[in-house]
Amino acid sequence: MPEAQDWDPLPSDPLTLAPPAPLPGLAPHVPPLPPRNRVPAPDSSAHQEAGQEGAGVGEPAAPGPSPPPPGHHRGHVKGRAERAEPVPPATRGQSPPRRRPRRSSIPATSAAAAAMPGARRAAGMHRPRPPPPEEPPALEDQDLLLAAAYVSDAQYNRNVPFETSPQAIRLYYFYNHWAMQAATYFFICVDLSLALFEEPALFPLPFLVTSIAEVLCLTAFFGRLVHFAKVTPQMVFWKDTKNICIMVTIVLTLVDLIVYGILEALNVYGIRWSRALRPVFLINFPESRQIRRAFRSIRNTLPDVLYVFLLFIFSVGTFSLMALKLFGDRGLKTVEGSPYFTNILDIAFELYVLVTTANSPDVMMPAYEFNWWYSLYFITYIIINTYIFMSVFLAVVYNNYRKHLKNEIRTLAYLKRRKMIEAFNILKVKVGTESVVKEAQWRRLVKVVAPDISSSHLELLLRILDEGQKGHVDKVNFLRLPDLLNIQVITINVKRHPLEAWMPRVYQSSASLLVQKVVRHRVFVWAYDVIILINAIFIALDEKNPFISYAEWLFLSLYIIEILLKLYTYEPRAYFGRKQFWNWFDTLIIIAALVATVANTTIQSARKYNSQQILDIVLILRILRLLRVIVSIQRFRVIVTTLINIGPTMLTFGGLVLVVYYVFAIIGMEAFHGRVHFFGPNSTSPDALTCGNSALRDSAFARGKYCRNNFNDLGSSLILLVELTVVNQWHILADGFALVTHQVAKLYFIGFHIVVVILIVNIFIAFILEAFFVAYSLEKSEVETAIEKKIQELGVGVQEEKVQDGRLIENMDAKDSGFIEDNKKKDLKGLYFRIASKKYRTVDALLQQMFESEIAPGEEGPSLEEILNFSPADIYPKNPSFENSA
Amino acid sequence: MPEAQDWDPLPSDPLTLAPPAPLPGLAPHVPPLPPRNRVPAPDSSAHQEAGQEGAGVGEPAAPGPSPPPPGHHRGHVKGRAERAEPVPPATRGQSPPRRRPRRSSIPATSAAAAAMPGARRAAGMHRPRPPPPEEPPALEDQDLLLAAAYVSDAQYNRNVPFETSPQAIRLYYFYNHWAMQAATYFFICVDLSLALFEEPALFPLPFLVTSIAEVLCLTAFFGRLVHFAKVTPQMVFWKDTKNICIMVTIVLTLVDLIVYGILEALNVYGIRWSRALRPVFLINFPESRQIRRAFRSIRNTLPDVLYVFLLFIFSVGTFSLMALKLFGDRGLKTVEGSPYFTNILDIAFELYVLVTTANSPDVMMPAYEFNWWYSLYFITYIIINTYIFMSVFLAVVYNNYRKHLKNEIRTLAYLKRRKMIEAFNILKVKVGTESVVKEAQWRRLVKVVAPDISSSHLELLLRILDEGQKGHVDKVNFLRLPDLLNIQVITINVKRHPLEAWMPRVYQSSASLLVQKVVRHRVFVWAYDVIILINAIFIALDEKNPFISYAEWLFLSLYIIEILLKLYTYEPRAYFGRKQFWNWFDTLIIIAALVATVANTTIQSARKYNSQQILDIVLILRILRLLRVIVSIQRFRVIVTTLINIGPTMLTFGGLVLVVYYVFAIIGMEAFHGRVHFFGPNSTSPDALTCGNSALRDSAFARGKYCRNNFNDLGSSLILLVELTVVNQWHILADGFALVTHQVAKLYFIGFHIVVVILIVNIFIAFILEAFFVAYSLEKSEVETAIEKKIQELGVGVQEEKVQDGRLIENMDAKDSGFIEDNKKKDLKGLYFRIASKKYRTVDALLQQMFESEIAPGEEGPSLEEILNFSPADIYPKNPSFENSA
Repeated sequence: MPEAQDWDPLPSDPLTLAPPAPLPGLAPHVPPLPPRNRVPAPDSSAHQEAGQEGAGVGEPAAPGPSPPPPGHHRGHVKGRAERAEPVPPATRGQSPPRRRPRRSSIPATSAAAAAMPGARRAAGMHRPRPPPPEEPPALEDQDLLLAAAYVSDAQYNRNVPFETSPQAIRLYYFYNHWAMQAATYFFICVDLSLALFEEPALFPLPFLVTSIAEVLCLTAFFGRLVHFAKVTPQMVFWKDTKNICIMVTIVLTLVDLIVYGILEALNVYGIRWSRALRPVFLINFPESRQIRRAFRSIRNTLPDVLYVFLLFIFSVGTFSLMALKLFGDRGLKTVEGSPYFTNILDIAFELYVLVTTANSPDVMMPAYEFNWWYSLYFITYIIINTYIFMSVFLAVVYNNYRKHLKNEIRTLAYLKRRKMIEAFNILKVKVGTESVVKEAQWRRLVKVVAPDISSSHLELLLRILDEGQKGHVDKVNFLRLPDLLNIQVITINVKRHPLEAWMPRVYQSSASLLVQKVVRHRVFVWAYDVIILINAIFIALDEKNPFISYAEWLFLSLYIIEILLKLYTYEPRAYFGRKQFWNWFDTLIIIAALVATVANTTIQSARKYNSQQILDIVLILRILRLLRVIVSIQRFRVIVTTLINIGPTMLTFGGLVLVVYYVFAIIGMEAFHGRVHFFGPNSTSPDALTCGNSALRDSAFARGKYCRNNFNDLGSSLILLVELTVVNQWHILADGFALVTHQVAKLYFIGFHIVVVILIVNIFIAFILEAFFVAYSLEKSEVETAIEKKIQELGVGVQEEKVQDGRLIENMDAKDSGFIEDNKKKDLKGLYFRIASKKYRTVDALLQQMFESEIAPGEEGPSLEEILNFSPADIYPKNPSFENSA
Repeated sequence: MPEAQDWDPLPSDPLTLAPPAPLPGLAPHVPPLPPRNRVPAPDSSAHQEAGQEGAGVGEPAAPGPSPPPPGHHRGHVKGRAERAEPVPPATRGQSPPRRRPRRSSIPATSAAAAAMPGARRAAGMHRPRPPPPEEPPALEDQDLLLAAAYVSDAQYNRNVPFETSPQAIRLYYFYNHWAMQAATYFFICVDLSLALFEEPALFPLPFLVTSIAEVLCLTAFFGRLVHFAKVTPQMVFWKDTKNICIMVTIVLTLVDLIVYGILEALNVYGIRWSRALRPVFLINFPESRQIRRAFRSIRNTLPDVLYVFLLFIFSVGTFSLMALKLFGDRGLKTVEGSPYFTNILDIAFELYVLVTTANSPDVMMPAYEFNWWYSLYFITYIIINTYIFMSVFLAVVYNNYRKHLKNEIRTLAYLKRRKMIEAFNILKVKVGTESVVKEAQWRRLVKVVAPDISSSHLELLLRILDEGQKGHVDKVNFLRLPDLLNIQVITINVKRHPLEAWMPRVYQSSASLLVQKVVRHRVFVWAYDVIILINAIFIALDEKNPFISYAEWLFLSLYIIEILLKLYTYEPRAYFGRKQFWNWFDTLIIIAALVATVANTTIQSARKYNSQQILDIVLILRILRLLRVIVSIQRFRVIVTTLINIGPTMLTFGGLVLVVYYVFAIIGMEAFHGRVHFFGPNSTSPDALTCGNSALRDSAFARGKYCRNNFNDLGSSLILLVELTVVNQWHILADGFALVTHQVAKLYFIGFHIVVVILIVNIFIAFILEAFFVAYSLEKSEVETAIEKKIQELGVGVQEEKVQDGRLIENMDAKDSGFIEDNKKKDLKGLYFRIASKKYRTVDALLQQMFESEIAPGEEGPSLEEILNFSPADIYPKNPSFENSA
């Protein structure tokens, strides 16, 4: 590890618990490149042959790939060329040493390259060192790392400006390492969950413990920030409000901790107000791009929403005034017997509640009973405010969401393009009049960017980008690299079943073949669907009946037999392939149900006692099996797939909702904790009827037995906030808490409704609408078509007929891990590529791809300044397909 | 009226109450063309001059319109040329008599043309009569009428295929007459409102009366249908399901009436089931195109919705099973003390209700109180079913709505194009190599299509379509005619104030001018806004205080003074112009409030008694005044305008909702009437607590005092259905009616929820979203720009500076009714054109215009067959702007 001395140990970084020596696990991207480069050679050559043979088998009539041009060594030769061979200028065209002077070129064999950096770096800065003339330029690792960082950023849409000094690049790799990110998230989780242990606590811990934990978290955040400061240029760092936010929050939290600690020591009541700031850390670390974008969406929507909201409030006010005049003097009574519509503030609140429909017919009944004409007043109100205004809110939010989504994605697309151009400029060499990236460099680059790429996949990409097999990748094709890397190509390796290998005679016997045929037949699937449905009926029946509980054992064995049969028929590694979600689902559920049922039976027979937890788990597992039925029906599968597809982005909303809930929960706990008590479901205490607070006597809150809905700990608060989000009966909850504190408390609930229901829920709906529209207007994007074309051209695509004839190939895939052994036997017709279905891609990725297909291939895009200052107003009507679906 | 003998009197048509002699008022489109043609000549010339002078005044530096080319007589000359002058072939280019043989050309002076048709028709069919050679062809009225019918259909997007025989065309004009349409709607309203008078009746009438009324309505519908059958080709008529539907419904209704009458006479209980069919008439008459389209939207959405719905039901079922297993054996009790989650059907219903959020925290509370972990079950359920599935429903409905909207609009656009090409082919003559429509023909055509078009407007259109002033309109320009006619051009006529005319000295005095300046200043508007707000506060205060009731008089006089001042400052006819909605609003409200307040005071002082109705009206009027404030604020005005803009199409939804409500109300009345009784708000009867039905004892329905929510008459039923649409507490209503009948009754309520809330409300939301997006992406359409350009070119546009300098010209407009008198004085700088603002156009019109701008100007579009069989699947990605905003 020659890089060891380069690590700039950060003394202030609390995360470097290990000594500053490099941890191999933490820096896999920092390449000991040459040794790894040596490995794939056989793969590469093998795949080459596989590809060509596959072409011969799969499409004998089609024009197969042209044989490698003379003078251009593919396969084995290439593998070696990568390592050592100085490429003769004659075969590769002219490659004049016209390169940027700051980049040194050294005549590097791989071994030399591996040995060099340490030596160079030990000698200090390495910049101007003239390239030996007439040697083809080879890149030093440093430049390769920089280019790889750009490509990687482009691939994952990271937009952290980083310094290009060697140390900074290495620090940057370290910064992006998954372990570092996981640690950050871990500390954020710990920080947020502290609220569970602080007063009012679900699991009380002394203040000392929670404050020490909090200080630890703060130290971790500070360390992460310092690390970031080392990576990014100083100017950028101090201009970024995110960083300032984090620092201010750290300081404020420390101040609050100290003040509260002192007050605590003096036995003075204090408020831990800084707890509401904790979500700042979740929002402001660069990893939470999605959550920040959602917040930006909200912020951008605010001005437009504000005007609609004011108009809406005006409308509610006007109607309140009308209600006061129409009903105030009639002496009407509500169902509870209180005066009806006599106070303008109460009326306004009731009418606001009516917008949420929560008090729907009740608020109207007294007037309606008095004279049915008055119902027209309420119907008008509902049409205008509930239906029209709420739809307008959705329209405004959705429109802004679309507008800003497009804008952000445009920015991302241009930034990506810029990064790729940077990377290209680092790696380029002149061939003829053209700047290109040599094949060898390109391979090394891809190996750094995607260390675990399979060599066959690498060859496939190369064939796509180097269409003419000229031995280099030109600029336009180079820019497509991150998209290609983002497309999941599954290498399908149709291997023989292990049983076939072990005892071919038995496995190929007619009885065995019949079994396989039966299992592969679709009637087999249907039969099990029927079994599952019968099982559902049995579940619905009474479980006390011993016959039924025996039947459960029968079903369990049937399911186990199904799995065994499938494992017998299909290749096990294919069956448990990485994308075989439903196979995993089946097996895990069955095994878990088996274990839990056995455990429960054991406990039951041993102690005559049903463990409630285990029983619950068994029940839920048993019913989850029903989900299998959905997958058999094509139309259902489409919908479910779309839903699963949006899943990851829905987690963004999870983060967003968590932030808002957390802040409101903390505020709610400070304001309302201890005001309402829950006495247990079977309490006979007289206080239980009023939730322990006499102010609630005869209130709808107490009558509805809502005592459990309180702010007495974080868990209860969050559940209460969910109930408020669902909206129904929120006015009763608001009334209850207003009664035990003050009428002003209603503002808290109204505020929550505006923020969560009017803004966040609408953005959520907007997001789902957009996702479905993108899914509907889904077309094969350009890049994918290129890969598919190449796969077909090479004859290594999965043939449709193969799928048709019942071999269920689309249910199988496997990494070509066992490839090298197999290809020894030249049994290569089993190797296929398939593009992982588009259904796993996110809305963002789709939109971005659509937009990118609009940028001219050579175009560099606007300047960085312009990109960062895009306003959603200048929406470019020139790119139809993007507009169309976005 | 030479056409008299052509009217084919329909003996079976009950609508022709008058004798078959033509009613002048009923057939204004049937032209006594020549006499009318003689009138506009002075207008036309006058406007010509006005235009030229306006150009000179408005834009002296700009290149004014070029003087009429020699040999081409515009102005006065043209007016005459239209009537009599045979246009010399030398100046108009060659006009060879190559025309379709079926169209005869006669050397018609206007007078001759007027005299001809009667004579010709009396002589029988008129077809082949060779045109006199070397005479320019003039069209006979018959062809002109046919062409005008096509243009008119294109303008209003009517798509009734009609026969082209002379009788059929005249019948078609009669069919489209507004009085006929109004009569149809009147009978539809009568038919629908019969339910108010039939048992169970709001206002009971004997069965004989309602049945006679119904038979009358049916006769009217049948007559309308016969009329339609005379207009349209037989094949088309019998192929149209709409007509079949109407006929079947008429027969079924008659059968039901007879059967029910007999049963009634025999005192046997019968069901008037045919009443649920009445909305068929509303849907199926050709006028209700919008409602039919909404229904088609729903029908088209059904397959996609169905699959989501099945998945949703599956999800609810799975969760029900889980709930049964998790909670069924716990022995939990609900708030009411009944067992909790023990019956799978009850659970499924409760969980379905939870999707609508109506029983939100209550259904969860027992499990939550038992163990807080169980709340996770409900939260999961709510996230999946309430949020995700309901959003998916919206997405599916919205997507289908967009898709089919686009498809229908495309069809409409192509049909319109075809109709215009038909019209062009009828009118065209050859000039040189080009087929064109002569200016004279064009004028006659426009006069027939739009009889009340102002002559200045006509000239403006001609200038746009005949850009080069060549004396004829070519095909491409001819096709634009309906769009131009659809654009409202307001002819602004800045006239002098009458007071200025009467006593110029006083009106122009410095005091008077000061008053006018003050009134025109924006501070004046603000001052009155403040007054209105103060008034609002006074309204909110207690009215018993005599000081406050005097203050009301003060405010009233302030408002009256405001109106008088404005009338003093602005020209009264301009102030009460056709589009001056807010001026009318102000004045009417103030006058009504004045009248009502005076009336109330009179009654009060005379009889010491406040009339409640009058008081209510006064109060509402007083508060409606507050709306004025909105209009002063620009941002609010934009939102309100958009809402007003969607108003007309929202009426479509009104129709749609009415149809669905009516059917459900009729079914509900048959099923539930008399089961629940309301005893008045202050009843002390013991039965009042159980709504007169002991089955409701201790039910939530009775406890909530929901007795007034019943199906005992049409009004109550409709209000109840509104409550069900709002969703909240619908489960209590459903439970109530299930208790008094059978649990199966819940299916009625679930069905209503699915139809109205899941389908119709979502389509409504989709519509509002789409309307707002179209409004947001609003750009000036091509056609409008052409008119605006011409207006500017002619220098008759309203100058922006004029608006700026406080003269509030945009608040004024007037038809140029007083134009002829005024132009006598050559005081023409007062005449301006302005395009009525785009804000009054509907979403459909916008979309159609966008789509039309995509069709190449000369393109005839696909064949009629193809047009009518467009499927939404072939959505043409080639027209970006249409796609983009639709």
